[in-house]
Amino acid sequence: MQPYREMSKEELLKEKEKLEAEYRKYQHRGLQLDMSRGKPSQDQLDLSMEMMDVLTSDHDLSCDDGTDCRNYGVLDGLPEAKVLLGDMIECNPDNIIIFGNSSLNIMYDTISRSMTHGVMGNTPWCKLDKVKFLCPVPGYDRHFAITEYFGIEMINVPMLSTGPDMDLIEKLVSEDEAIKGIWCVPKYSNPQGITYSDETVRRFARLKPAAKDFRIYWDNAYCVHHLYDINQDHLIEILAECKRAGNPDMVYKFCSTSKISFPGSGLAAIAASANNLEDIKKQLCVQTIGHDKVNQLRHVRFFKDIYGITEHMKKHAESLRPKFEMILDTFERELKELEVGSWYCPKGGYFITYETLEGCAKNVVARAKKAGVVMTPAGAPFPYGKDPKDSVIRISPSYPSLEDLTLATKIFVVCVKLSSIDKLLKAEV
Amino acid sequence: MQPYREMSKEELLKEKEKLEAEYRKYQHRGLQLDMSRGKPSQDQLDLSMEMMDVLTSDHDLSCDDGTDCRNYGVLDGLPEAKVLLGDMIECNPDNIIIFGNSSLNIMYDTISRSMTHGVMGNTPWCKLDKVKFLCPVPGYDRHFAITEYFGIEMINVPMLSTGPDMDLIEKLVSEDEAIKGIWCVPKYSNPQGITYSDETVRRFARLKPAAKDFRIYWDNAYCVHHLYDINQDHLIEILAECKRAGNPDMVYKFCSTSKISFPGSGLAAIAASANNLEDIKKQLCVQTIGHDKVNQLRHVRFFKDIYGITEHMKKHAESLRPKFEMILDTFERELKELEVGSWYCPKGGYFITYETLEGCAKNVVARAKKAGVVMTPAGAPFPYGKDPKDSVIRISPSYPSLEDLTLATKIFVVCVKLSSIDKLLKAEV
Repeated sequence: MQPYREMSKEELLKEKEKLEAEYRKYQHRGLQLDMSRGKPSQDQLDLSMEMMDVLTSDHDLSCDDGTDCRNYGVLDGLPEAKVLLGDMIECNPDNIIIFGNSSLNIMYDTISRSMTHGVMGNTPWCKLDKVKFLCPVPGYDRHFAITEYFGIEMINVPMLSTGPDMDLIEKLVSEDEAIKGIWCVPKYSNPQGITYSDETVRRFARLKPAAKDFRIYWDNAYCVHHLYDINQDHLIEILAECKRAGNPDMVYKFCSTSKISFPGSGLAAIAASANNLEDIKKQLCVQTIGHDKVNQLRHVRFFKDIYGITEHMKKHAESLRPKFEMILDTFERELKELEVGSWYCPKGGYFITYETLEGCAKNVVARAKKAGVVMTPAGAPFPYGKDPKDSVIRISPSYPSLEDLTLATKIFVVCVKLSSIDKLLKAEV
Repeated sequence: MQPYREMSKEELLKEKEKLEAEYRKYQHRGLQLDMSRGKPSQDQLDLSMEMMDVLTSDHDLSCDDGTDCRNYGVLDGLPEAKVLLGDMIECNPDNIIIFGNSSLNIMYDTISRSMTHGVMGNTPWCKLDKVKFLCPVPGYDRHFAITEYFGIEMINVPMLSTGPDMDLIEKLVSEDEAIKGIWCVPKYSNPQGITYSDETVRRFARLKPAAKDFRIYWDNAYCVHHLYDINQDHLIEILAECKRAGNPDMVYKFCSTSKISFPGSGLAAIAASANNLEDIKKQLCVQTIGHDKVNQLRHVRFFKDIYGITEHMKKHAESLRPKFEMILDTFERELKELEVGSWYCPKGGYFITYETLEGCAKNVVARAKKAGVVMTPAGAPFPYGKDPKDSVIRISPSYPSLEDLTLATKIFVVCVKLSSIDKLLKAEV
């Protein structure tokens, strides 16, 4: 195989003809395959079924300090649930508040509270002319949806292989007081699977933002979502690093068990400094009497401790690893030498990102759809849905069976090749 | 017994001496009794323990339409959960969104959304100079805490035996565009136990508010919380009544199963017109991917249908009824003829309100505390914690055992008598 761009027009046209025949063959099969959603598969969900047996009517539903988990009370979470999630995200349990089932909901509420009441005594954002957020791109569309919903201006920051471009971030936050936050998925990032380097985390902790109420929104969604046991990424713990750097209040850390136990029926939490937690609790005690403690107890009784989570995540990895490896192997075999795009090989998380030649992503996604393969819409991983280069495609390997995924990947590869040839042919004109 | 105010100073002093001896006797016992909190008792919680057995690893966790409840998705709730709660609050399931565990949280979020984004296209409240809410008093302190937190000015509206003073409400809402809402607990109201009369509900539905974005916050917290099966209050369904009156969008209705299954681990919901629900969902889809569907399924499998809830609530009534009756009997026997206060005899809900002579409530609560009986702080059922007449005391019979409650009620009665005598003696000076 030689790179497409080194091929003559005739060679490209010949290759195209061959690929179109293959593409039509897939089209005629009337397939319905889905690589669009970061959802666990059914066999991953089955891994947690025994969680349904740890709290039956035979069990005592009191936690260690004697609190009856069935009744009202306990605003910030059961002590043993704080220990479990604290160990998971490497935080002191005292720095944690356990919420309901959704870390996205915590992030939304955090932004909403900042809008109406401000951050630790600073002016509420709704009283300011302009509020801006930095958005490492590509990133998580639901993050961007929150900031867009609140009319917060989003500024793209390119992702590098070490994490977001820190030179740019340092410059922007130190100059512009309107910049109040940055969205980060620091480990096995959504969608690329990149883990921020040690230097990146240290530079984050040492930011000198112009805005006193600037906060890093550290969405540690994939903290224990390794594909390999030994060969896993390490991320420096940001709360401790911020404390060491003299910026203890600069970060909110979010996590959930959505892709550990059951999405929608897991636990979510925020970790932050004592000052931030105090600020949050002032609001939280008005918003609710408390979150679902029975479900907190259920998680504690099922996982027991962090080792329980480690072992559990190995089972998830066994389901996910072959899917990731199949896709990456296929890309390596089918696409690498053609030089029609690039990708990062993640060691964890839920996504692989394929970066096409400029201007091809939408085309690939549309083409795949016509052959029965649903992908995340091109542009989705960018603020306002606009990928400036139209090149990023997020691939979600988790939900389909390996068999379906293998077929979908083959079709995707054909679509990438076709779109790349089209682009090169057009460029020649 | 004759009314205290008809007694001579000498008779009052003699009575006081006798009561003080009794009070000191209680004080010396070092009691710790609690009538402050509207929490179910342990035996009430035990009634729902079998809910823990309906979803074990042997069960299929799919709902009727095949959705796997363990995975992501379903923003507005399982269809069968909507039917269950719809039957409970007499609404079309299509007019319902199921949320997480807390109706208070829904109310908070509703106010918060109105602040930042406005109601159905109207100006966000945070952009207005002034926002006001009507607060029937006495009312629920957590309602008032939300409006206070958002800097919304609260205007007291007196409760009558038929519900809030509708003459005043009609006048205020038609004149003042800054009035954006009213807090209502229309059935077995918190804290008096009053159910709004048919006329009251009809007049609510026919309000002509100056503000287009005026909404009735109809917190139907005690919709099925009857003490008696036949002798129960009936409340006209407000959504249908508003529709009939040409005001379909004027009401948000809230409910939860907190005092039906487990507080903190129940289901909460909002019911409203299609227009309102559309407005809410625009925000909700940014805030979360969905609420806890496994818990929704658990409730549906446990209660099965509205008849299941009816039968279940009869068991709750068996626990609560003797407590309510004991208190009301004691008041009737010990306090009525003295003419030192008044109360309403509720047929459901969670509270009894004792209204003392003017200026005595704080004194009674403080006195009870010194004898080991904790009451809800006087003033709590009013905006800003200020009871203008210092006369309202909320009593929560549910949590203590009948034995403890009987003792606490005796002590309370002694405190009421002593404080009343003090007041009358002072008036004589």
